[in-house]
Amino acid sequence: MKIYDVANFPNPLRVRIALAEKNATNNVQFIPVDLMNGEHRTAAFIAKNPAASVPVLELDDGTYISECTAITEYIDHLFEGPSLTGSTAKERAVINMLQKRAESMVLEPVGTYFHHATDGLGPALEIYQNKEWGQKQKEISLKGLSYFDTVLADNTYLAGDHFTIADITLYAGIGFAGFAKIDIPADLTHIHRWLSLVAERPSIKL
Amino acid sequence: MKIYDVANFPNPLRVRIALAEKNATNNVQFIPVDLMNGEHRTAAFIAKNPAASVPVLELDDGTYISECTAITEYIDHLFEGPSLTGSTAKERAVINMLQKRAESMVLEPVGTYFHHATDGLGPALEIYQNKEWGQKQKEISLKGLSYFDTVLADNTYLAGDHFTIADITLYAGIGFAGFAKIDIPADLTHIHRWLSLVAERPSIKL
Ligand SMILES: N[C@@H](CCC(=O)N[C@@H](CS)C(=O)NCC(=O)O)C(=O)O
Ligand SMILES: N[C@@H](CCC(=O)N[C@@H](CS)C(=O)NCC(=O)O)C(=O)O
Repeated sequence: MKIYDVANFPNPLRVRIALAEKNATNNVQFIPVDLMNGEHRTAAFIAKNPAASVPVLELDDGTYISECTAITEYIDHLFEGPSLTGSTAKERAVINMLQKRAESMVLEPVGTYFHHATDGLGPALEIYQNKEWGQKQKEISLKGLSYFDTVLADNTYLAGDHFTIADITLYAGIGFAGFAKIDIPADLTHIHRWLSLVAERPSIKL
Repeated sequence: MKIYDVANFPNPLRVRIALAEKNATNNVQFIPVDLMNGEHRTAAFIAKNPAASVPVLELDDGTYISECTAITEYIDHLFEGPSLTGSTAKERAVINMLQKRAESMVLEPVGTYFHHATDGLGPALEIYQNKEWGQKQKEISLKGLSYFDTVLADNTYLAGDHFTIADITLYAGIGFAGFAKIDIPADLTHIHRWLSLVAERPSIKL
Protein backbone atom coordinates (compact mmCIF):
# COMPACT_ATOMS: atom_id res chain seq x y z
CA MET A 1 0.00 0.00 0.00
CA LYS A 2 0.97 3.63 -0.55
CA ILE A 3 0.65 6.77 1.53
CA TYR A 4 0.67 10.22 -0.08
CA ASP A 5 1.90 12.68 2.53
CA VAL A 6 4.44 15.29 3.64
CA ALA A 7 6.96 14.08 6.22
CA ASN A 8 6.83 15.96 9.55
CA PHE A 9 3.47 17.60 8.99
CA PRO A 10 1.09 17.09 11.93
CA ASN A 11 -1.56 14.93 10.30
CA PRO A 12 0.85 12.70 8.34
CA LEU A 13 2.70 12.22 11.64
CA ARG A 14 -0.43 10.69 13.22
CA VAL A 15 -0.48 7.91 10.65
CA ARG A 16 3.28 7.38 10.72
CA ILE A 17 3.15 6.93 14.52
CA ALA A 18 0.26 4.46 14.18
CA LEU A 19 2.23 2.46 11.59
CA ALA A 20 5.34 2.42 13.79
CA GLU A 21 3.29 1.30 16.82
CA LYS A 22 2.13 -1.68 14.74
CA ASN A 23 5.64 -2.33 13.37
CA ALA A 24 4.16 -1.88 9.93
CA THR A 25 6.07 1.09 8.51
CA ASN A 26 7.96 -1.14 6.06
CA ASN A 27 4.71 -2.27 4.45
CA VAL A 28 4.09 1.19 3.08
CA GLN A 29 5.54 3.11 0.17
CA PHE A 30 5.51 6.84 0.97
CA ILE A 31 4.86 9.22 -1.91
CA PRO A 32 5.72 12.85 -1.17
CA VAL A 33 3.10 15.47 -2.03
CA ASP A 34 4.42 18.91 -2.99
CA LEU A 35 1.99 20.65 -0.66
CA MET A 36 3.90 23.94 -0.50
CA ASN A 37 3.37 24.26 -4.26
CA GLY A 38 -0.30 23.34 -4.01
CA GLU A 39 -0.15 19.82 -5.45
CA HIS A 40 -2.88 18.77 -2.97
CA ARG A 41 -5.29 21.23 -4.60
CA THR A 42 -4.91 19.90 -8.16
CA ALA A 43 -7.77 17.97 -9.75
CA ALA A 44 -5.61 14.83 -9.74
CA PHE A 45 -5.17 14.98 -5.97
CA ILE A 46 -8.75 16.02 -5.22
CA ALA A 47 -9.84 12.86 -7.04
CA LYS A 48 -7.94 10.98 -4.30
CA ASN A 49 -9.21 13.16 -1.44
CA PRO A 50 -11.97 15.74 -1.92
CA ALA A 51 -10.82 17.50 1.27
CA ALA A 52 -7.50 18.35 -0.47
CA SER A 53 -5.36 17.28 2.46
CA VAL A 54 -2.70 14.78 3.41
CA PRO A 55 -2.30 11.97 4.34
CA VAL A 56 -4.09 9.68 1.88
CA LEU A 57 -3.71 5.90 1.92
CA GLU A 58 -4.02 3.97 -1.35
CA LEU A 59 -4.88 0.29 -0.99
CA ASP A 60 -3.60 -2.29 -3.45
CA ASP A 61 -7.09 -2.50 -5.00
CA GLY A 62 -6.96 1.24 -5.79
CA THR A 63 -9.25 2.41 -2.97
CA TYR A 64 -8.24 5.76 -1.47
CA ILE A 65 -8.68 6.30 2.26
CA SER A 66 -8.21 9.76 3.73
CA GLU A 67 -8.76 11.04 7.29
CA CYS A 68 -6.23 9.95 9.90
CA THR A 69 -8.88 8.22 11.99
CA ALA A 70 -9.95 6.08 9.02
CA ILE A 71 -6.38 5.26 8.00
CA THR A 72 -5.50 4.34 11.60
CA GLU A 73 -8.61 2.18 11.88
CA TYR A 74 -7.43 0.30 8.79
CA ILE A 75 -3.88 -0.11 10.02
CA ASP A 76 -5.07 -1.16 13.46
CA HIS A 77 -7.32 -3.91 12.11
CA LEU A 78 -4.92 -5.14 9.46
CA PHE A 79 -1.74 -5.53 11.49
CA GLU A 80 -0.99 -7.48 14.69
CA GLY A 81 0.07 -5.85 17.93
CA PRO A 82 -1.60 -3.92 20.76
CA SER A 83 -4.85 -2.28 19.72
CA LEU A 84 -4.85 1.47 19.09
CA THR A 85 -8.64 1.74 18.82
CA GLY A 86 -9.81 -0.69 21.54
CA SER A 87 -11.46 -4.09 21.60
CA THR A 88 -14.60 -4.10 23.76
CA ALA A 89 -17.61 -1.86 23.11
CA LYS A 90 -16.72 0.32 26.07
CA GLU A 91 -13.01 0.61 25.24
CA ARG A 92 -13.82 1.50 21.65
CA ALA A 93 -16.32 4.15 22.75
CA VAL A 94 -14.00 5.76 25.30
CA ILE A 95 -11.09 5.85 22.84
CA ASN A 96 -13.27 7.20 20.02
CA MET A 97 -14.57 9.95 22.33
CA LEU A 98 -11.13 10.99 23.56
CA GLN A 99 -9.70 10.91 20.04
CA LYS A 100 -12.50 13.15 18.78
CA ARG A 101 -11.99 15.52 21.72
CA ALA A 102 -8.25 15.67 20.97
CA GLU A 103 -9.18 16.67 17.42
CA SER A 104 -11.94 19.14 18.18
CA MET A 105 -10.50 20.67 21.37
CA VAL A 106 -6.77 20.80 20.44
CA LEU A 107 -5.54 19.69 17.01
CA GLU A 108 -8.22 21.36 14.88
CA PRO A 109 -8.31 24.69 16.78
CA VAL A 110 -4.49 24.85 16.72
CA GLY A 111 -4.60 24.25 12.96
CA THR A 112 -7.25 26.93 12.49
CA TYR A 113 -5.21 29.37 14.60
CA PHE A 114 -2.14 28.61 12.47
CA HIS A 115 -3.95 28.97 9.13
CA HIS A 116 -6.02 32.03 10.09
CA ALA A 117 -4.20 34.10 12.71
CA THR A 118 -0.59 33.61 11.56
CA ASP A 119 1.04 33.61 8.12
CA GLY A 120 0.31 29.89 8.04
CA LEU A 121 1.64 28.27 4.89
CA GLY A 122 2.12 31.65 3.19
CA PRO A 123 -0.07 33.86 1.00
CA ALA A 124 -0.21 31.52 -2.00
CA LEU A 125 -1.93 28.81 0.09
CA GLU A 126 -3.79 30.89 2.71
CA ILE A 127 -6.24 32.41 0.28
CA TYR A 128 -8.90 33.12 2.90
CA GLN A 129 -8.06 34.13 6.46
CA ASN A 130 -10.28 35.20 9.35
CA LYS A 131 -7.90 36.47 12.02
CA GLU A 132 -10.49 36.99 14.74
CA TRP A 133 -11.74 33.43 14.35
CA GLY A 134 -8.15 32.19 14.37
CA GLN A 135 -7.38 34.00 17.63
CA LYS A 136 -10.52 32.57 19.21
CA GLN A 137 -9.35 29.07 18.26
CA LYS A 138 -6.10 29.61 20.12
CA GLU A 139 -8.11 30.27 23.32
CA ILE A 140 -10.17 27.15 22.63
CA SER A 141 -7.04 25.04 22.21
CA LEU A 142 -5.67 26.30 25.55
CA LYS A 143 -8.94 25.37 27.26
CA GLY A 144 -8.68 21.98 25.58
CA LEU A 145 -5.19 21.48 26.95
CA SER A 146 -6.42 22.32 30.47
CA TYR A 147 -9.14 19.71 30.08
CA PHE A 148 -6.62 17.06 28.98
CA ASP A 149 -4.43 17.94 31.95
CA THR A 150 -7.30 16.85 34.22
CA VAL A 151 -7.69 13.61 32.25
CA LEU A 152 -3.98 12.88 32.60
CA ALA A 153 -4.06 13.61 36.35
CA ASP A 154 -5.87 10.27 36.74
CA ASN A 155 -4.48 8.19 33.88
CA THR A 156 -1.11 7.20 32.45
CA TYR A 157 -2.41 7.64 28.91
CA LEU A 158 -5.58 9.39 27.80
CA ALA A 159 -7.79 6.30 27.77
CA GLY A 160 -6.12 4.53 30.74
CA ASP A 161 -3.08 2.26 30.94
CA HIS A 162 -2.51 1.88 27.20
CA PHE A 163 -1.30 4.18 24.46
CA THR A 164 -4.05 4.67 21.84
CA ILE A 165 -5.07 6.74 18.83
CA ALA A 166 -6.30 9.40 21.29
CA ASP A 167 -2.73 9.90 22.54
CA ILE A 168 -1.50 10.08 18.95
CA THR A 169 -3.94 12.86 18.08
CA LEU A 170 -3.16 14.89 21.20
CA TYR A 171 0.57 14.44 20.62
CA ALA A 172 0.24 15.69 17.04
CA GLY A 173 -1.89 18.59 18.27
CA ILE A 174 0.70 19.63 20.84
CA GLY A 175 3.49 19.32 18.29
CA PHE A 176 1.48 21.55 15.96
CA ALA A 177 0.95 24.02 18.83
CA GLY A 178 4.72 24.21 19.30
CA PHE A 179 5.21 24.85 15.60
CA ALA A 180 2.54 27.59 15.73
CA LYS A 181 4.29 29.11 18.79
CA ILE A 182 1.47 28.38 21.23
CA ASP A 183 3.23 27.67 24.53
CA ILE A 184 1.95 24.81 26.65
CA PRO A 185 1.48 26.44 30.08
CA ALA A 186 4.03 25.15 32.61
CA ASP A 187 1.32 24.52 35.21
CA LEU A 188 -0.23 21.78 33.06
CA THR A 189 2.06 19.35 34.86
CA HIS A 190 0.19 16.19 33.90
CA ILE A 191 0.45 17.08 30.21
CA HIS A 192 4.19 17.66 30.61
CA ARG A 193 4.63 14.32 32.44
CA TRP A 194 2.70 12.54 29.69
CA LEU A 195 4.65 14.35 26.93
CA SER A 196 7.95 13.02 28.36
CA LEU A 197 6.52 9.53 28.55
CA VAL A 198 5.17 9.58 25.01
CA ALA A 199 8.37 11.09 23.60
CA GLU A 200 10.23 7.96 24.77
CA ARG A 201 8.14 5.56 22.71
CA PRO A 202 10.07 3.87 19.88
CA SER A 203 7.31 4.95 17.45
CA ILE A 204 8.04 8.58 18.27
CA LYS A 205 11.79 8.65 18.85
CA LEU A 206 12.31 7.34 15.31
CA MET B 1 -28.26 2.95 30.28
CA LYS B 2 -29.29 6.60 30.06
CA ILE B 3 -29.00 9.26 27.39
CA TYR B 4 -29.07 12.96 28.25
CA ASP B 5 -30.33 14.82 25.21
CA VAL B 6 -32.89 17.10 23.59
CA ALA B 7 -35.37 15.35 21.31
CA ASN B 8 -35.30 16.51 17.66
CA PHE B 9 -31.94 18.28 17.87
CA PRO B 10 -29.54 17.22 15.08
CA ASN B 11 -26.87 15.46 17.13
CA PRO B 12 -29.25 13.66 19.50
CA LEU B 13 -31.09 12.50 16.38
CA ARG B 14 -27.95 10.71 15.15
CA VAL B 15 -27.87 8.51 18.22
CA ARG B 16 -31.62 7.93 18.26
CA ILE B 17 -31.48 6.72 14.65
CA ALA B 18 -28.56 4.40 15.48
CA LEU B 19 -30.50 2.94 18.42
CA ALA B 20 -33.60 2.43 16.29
CA GLU B 21 -31.55 0.74 13.53
CA LYS B 22 -30.35 -1.75 16.19
CA ASN B 23 -33.86 -2.16 17.65
CA ALA B 24 -32.39 -0.98 20.94
CA THR B 25 -34.34 2.18 21.73
CA ASN B 26 -36.19 0.49 24.58
CA ASN B 27 -32.93 -0.25 26.39
CA VAL B 28 -32.37 3.44 27.02
CA GLN B 29 -33.86 5.88 29.48
CA PHE B 30 -33.86 9.37 27.92
CA ILE B 31 -33.25 12.29 30.26
CA PRO B 32 -34.15 15.69 28.79
CA VAL B 33 -31.57 18.47 29.09
CA ASP B 34 -32.94 22.01 29.33
CA LEU B 35 -30.53 23.27 26.69
CA MET B 36 -32.49 26.42 25.86
CA ASN B 37 -31.96 27.52 29.47
CA GLY B 38 -28.27 26.63 29.41
CA GLU B 39 -28.37 23.46 31.54
CA HIS B 40 -25.64 21.96 29.33
CA ARG B 41 -23.26 24.75 30.43
CA THR B 42 -23.64 24.16 34.17
CA ALA B 43 -20.74 22.63 36.13
CA ALA B 44 -22.86 19.54 36.76
CA PHE B 45 -23.30 18.92 33.04
CA ILE B 46 -19.73 19.81 32.07
CA ALA B 47 -18.61 17.10 34.51
CA LYS B 48 -20.47 14.68 32.22
CA ASN B 49 -19.24 16.24 28.97
CA PRO B 50 -16.51 18.91 28.92
CA ALA B 51 -17.66 19.96 25.44
CA ALA B 52 -21.00 21.09 26.97
CA SER B 53 -23.12 19.44 24.32
CA VAL B 54 -25.73 16.75 23.89
CA PRO B 55 -26.11 13.80 23.56
CA VAL B 56 -24.30 12.09 26.44
CA LEU B 57 -24.62 8.38 27.18
CA GLU B 58 -24.30 7.17 30.77
CA LEU B 59 -23.39 3.51 31.16
CA ASP B 60 -24.65 1.46 34.10
CA ASP B 61 -21.15 1.63 35.67
CA GLY B 62 -21.33 5.44 35.67
CA THR B 63 -19.05 6.04 32.68
CA TYR B 64 -20.11 8.99 30.52
CA ILE B 65 -19.67 8.77 26.75
CA SER B 66 -20.17 11.84 24.60
CA GLU B 67 -19.63 12.37 20.86
CA CYS B 68 -22.14 10.74 18.54
CA THR B 69 -19.47 8.65 16.83
CA ALA B 70 -18.37 7.18 20.18
CA ILE B 71 -21.94 6.53 21.35
CA THR B 72 -22.79 4.90 18.02
CA GLU B 73 -19.65 2.77 18.19
CA TYR B 74 -20.82 1.55 21.61
CA ILE B 75 -24.36 0.84 20.48
CA ASP B 76 -23.16 -0.87 17.32
CA HIS B 77 -20.86 -3.26 19.21
CA LEU B 78 -23.27 -3.95 22.07
CA PHE B 79 -26.43 -4.78 20.15
CA GLU B 80 -27.14 -7.36 17.42
CA GLY B 81 -28.23 -6.45 13.92
CA PRO B 82 -26.60 -5.12 10.77
CA SER B 83 -23.36 -3.26 11.44
CA LEU B 84 -23.41 0.54 11.27
CA THR B 85 -19.62 0.90 11.48
CA GLY B 86 -18.42 -2.01 9.31
CA SER B 87 -16.72 -5.33 9.95
CA THR B 88 -13.59 -5.74 7.82
CA ALA B 89 -10.60 -3.39 8.01
CA LYS B 90 -11.50 -1.87 4.66
CA GLU B 91 -15.21 -1.47 5.41
CA ARG B 92 -14.43 0.15 8.75
CA ALA B 93 -11.97 2.55 7.13
CA VAL B 94 -14.30 3.59 4.30
CA ILE B 95 -17.21 4.13 6.69
CA ASN B 96 -15.05 6.07 9.18
CA MET B 97 -13.78 8.29 6.35
CA LEU B 98 -17.25 9.02 4.94
CA GLN B 99 -18.67 9.64 8.40
CA LYS B 100 -15.90 12.13 9.16
CA ARG B 101 -16.44 13.84 5.79
CA ALA B 102 -20.19 14.08 6.51
CA GLU B 103 -19.28 15.81 9.79
CA SER B 104 -16.56 18.12 8.53
CA MET B 105 -18.01 18.93 5.10
CA VAL B 106 -21.73 19.20 5.99
CA LEU B 107 -22.96 18.80 9.58
CA GLU B 108 -20.31 20.91 11.31
CA PRO B 109 -20.26 23.78 8.78
CA VAL B 110 -24.07 23.89 8.80
CA GLY B 111 -23.95 24.09 12.61
CA THR B 112 -21.35 26.83 12.51
CA TYR B 113 -23.42 28.77 9.96
CA PHE B 114 -26.47 28.42 12.21
CA HIS B 115 -24.69 29.49 15.39
CA HIS B 116 -22.65 32.31 13.83
CA ALA B 117 -24.49 33.77 10.83
CA THR B 118 -28.09 33.48 12.06
CA ASP B 119 -29.74 34.16 15.43
CA GLY B 120 -28.94 30.54 16.26
CA LEU B 121 -30.26 29.58 19.70
CA GLY B 122 -30.79 33.24 20.65
CA PRO B 123 -28.64 35.89 22.35
CA ALA B 124 -28.48 34.21 25.77
CA LEU B 125 -26.71 31.17 24.29
CA GLU B 126 -24.89 32.68 21.28
CA ILE B 127 -22.44 34.71 23.35
CA TYR B 128 -19.78 34.90 20.62
CA GLN B 129 -20.64 35.13 16.95
CA ASN B 130 -18.45 35.61 13.89
CA LYS B 131 -20.84 36.29 11.02
CA GLU B 132 -18.24 36.27 8.25
CA TRP B 133 -16.95 32.87 9.35
CA GLY B 134 -20.51 31.59 9.60
CA GLN B 135 -21.31 32.70 6.04
CA LYS B 136 -18.16 31.00 4.78
CA GLN B 137 -19.27 27.77 6.42
CA LYS B 138 -22.53 27.88 4.49
CA GLU B 139 -20.52 27.90 1.24
CA ILE B 140 -18.43 25.02 2.54
CA SER B 141 -21.52 22.99 3.38
CA LEU B 142 -22.91 23.52 -0.13
CA LYS B 143 -19.63 22.31 -1.62
CA GLY B 144 -19.83 19.32 0.72
CA LEU B 145 -23.33 18.51 -0.51
CA SER B 146 -22.12 18.63 -4.13
CA TYR B 147 -19.36 16.20 -3.22
CA PHE B 148 -21.84 13.79 -1.60
CA ASP B 149 -24.04 14.02 -4.68
CA THR B 150 -21.15 12.53 -6.68
CA VAL B 151 -20.72 9.76 -4.10
CA LEU B 152 -24.42 8.92 -4.29
CA ALA B 153 -24.35 8.89 -8.09
CA ASP B 154 -22.50 5.56 -7.80
CA ASN B 155 -23.85 4.08 -4.56
CA THR B 156 -27.23 3.37 -2.98
CA TYR B 157 -25.93 4.52 0.40
CA LEU B 158 -22.78 6.52 1.12
CA ALA B 159 -20.54 3.53 1.79
CA GLY B 160 -22.16 1.17 -0.74
CA ASP B 161 -25.18 -1.14 -0.47
CA HIS B 162 -25.75 -0.77 3.26
CA PHE B 163 -27.00 2.04 5.48
CA THR B 164 -24.24 3.10 7.94
CA ILE B 165 -23.25 5.76 10.45
CA ALA B 166 -22.06 7.86 7.50
CA ASP B 167 -25.63 8.06 6.18
CA ILE B 168 -26.87 8.95 9.66
CA THR B 169 -24.46 11.88 9.92
CA LEU B 170 -25.27 13.21 6.46
CA TYR B 171 -28.98 12.84 7.13
CA ALA B 172 -28.67 14.81 10.39
CA GLY B 173 -26.59 17.43 8.59
CA ILE B 174 -29.20 17.87 5.85
CA GLY B 175 -31.97 18.05 8.44
CA PHE B 176 -30.00 20.76 10.24
CA ALA B 177 -29.51 22.58 6.93
CA GLY B 178 -33.28 22.62 6.43
CA PHE B 179 -33.79 24.01 9.92
CA ALA B 180 -31.15 26.69 9.23
CA LYS B 181 -32.91 27.51 5.92
CA ILE B 182 -30.08 26.34 3.68
CA ASP B 183 -31.84 24.95 0.59
CA ILE B 184 -30.52 21.74 -0.88
CA PRO B 185 -30.06 22.64 -4.57
CA ALA B 186 -32.59 20.84 -6.78
CA ASP B 187 -29.87 19.72 -9.20
CA LEU B 188 -28.28 17.48 -6.55
CA THR B 189 -30.54 14.71 -7.81
CA HIS B 190 -28.63 11.85 -6.23
CA ILE B 191 -28.91 13.46 -2.79
CA HIS B 192 -32.65 13.90 -3.30
CA ARG B 193 -33.04 10.26 -4.43
CA TRP B 194 -31.09 9.10 -1.34
CA LEU B 195 -33.09 11.40 0.99
CA SER B 196 -36.35 9.78 -0.14
CA LEU B 197 -34.87 6.33 0.38
CA VAL B 198 -33.53 7.13 3.85
CA ALA B 199 -36.75 8.86 4.91
CA GLU B 200 -38.58 5.53 4.40
CA ARG B 201 -36.45 3.62 6.93
CA PRO B 202 -38.36 2.55 10.03
CA SER B 203 -35.61 4.14 12.19
CA ILE B 204 -36.38 7.50 10.65
CA LYS B 205 -40.14 7.40 10.06
CA LEU B 206 -40.66 6.88 13.79
N1 LIG C 1 -8.87 15.70 9.17
C1 LIG C 1 -7.77 15.48 8.26
C2 LIG C 1 -6.79 16.64 8.36
C3 LIG C 1 -5.72 16.58 7.30
C4 LIG C 1 -4.97 17.93 7.17
O1 LIG C 1 -5.52 18.99 7.46
N2 LIG C 1 -3.70 17.85 6.69
C5 LIG C 1 -2.92 19.05 6.46
C6 LIG C 1 -1.45 18.74 6.65
S1 LIG C 1 -1.03 18.47 8.34
C7 LIG C 1 -3.11 19.51 5.03
O2 LIG C 1 -3.11 18.69 4.12
N3 LIG C 1 -3.30 20.84 4.80
C8 LIG C 1 -3.48 21.33 3.49
C9 LIG C 1 -3.75 22.82 3.46
O3 LIG C 1 -3.73 23.44 4.53
O4 LIG C 1 -3.98 23.34 2.36
C10 LIG C 1 -7.10 14.15 8.58
O5 LIG C 1 -7.40 13.57 9.64
O6 LIG C 1 -6.33 13.63 7.75
N1 LIG D 1 -19.57 16.54 18.07
C1 LIG D 1 -20.67 16.50 19.00
C2 LIG D 1 -21.65 17.60 18.68
C3 LIG D 1 -22.74 17.76 19.73
C4 LIG D 1 -23.51 19.08 19.58
O1 LIG D 1 -22.98 20.08 19.06
N2 LIG D 1 -24.76 19.09 20.05
C5 LIG D 1 -25.58 20.30 20.04
C6 LIG D 1 -27.05 19.95 19.93
S1 LIG D 1 -27.44 19.36 18.32
C7 LIG D 1 -25.39 21.05 21.34
O2 LIG D 1 -25.39 20.43 22.41
N3 LIG D 1 -25.21 22.39 21.29
C8 LIG D 1 -25.04 23.16 22.48
C9 LIG D 1 -24.79 24.60 22.20
O3 LIG D 1 -24.82 24.99 21.01
O4 LIG D 1 -24.58 25.34 23.15
C10 LIG D 1 -21.32 15.12 18.98
O5 LIG D 1 -21.02 14.34 18.06
O6 LIG D 1 -22.09 14.77 19.89
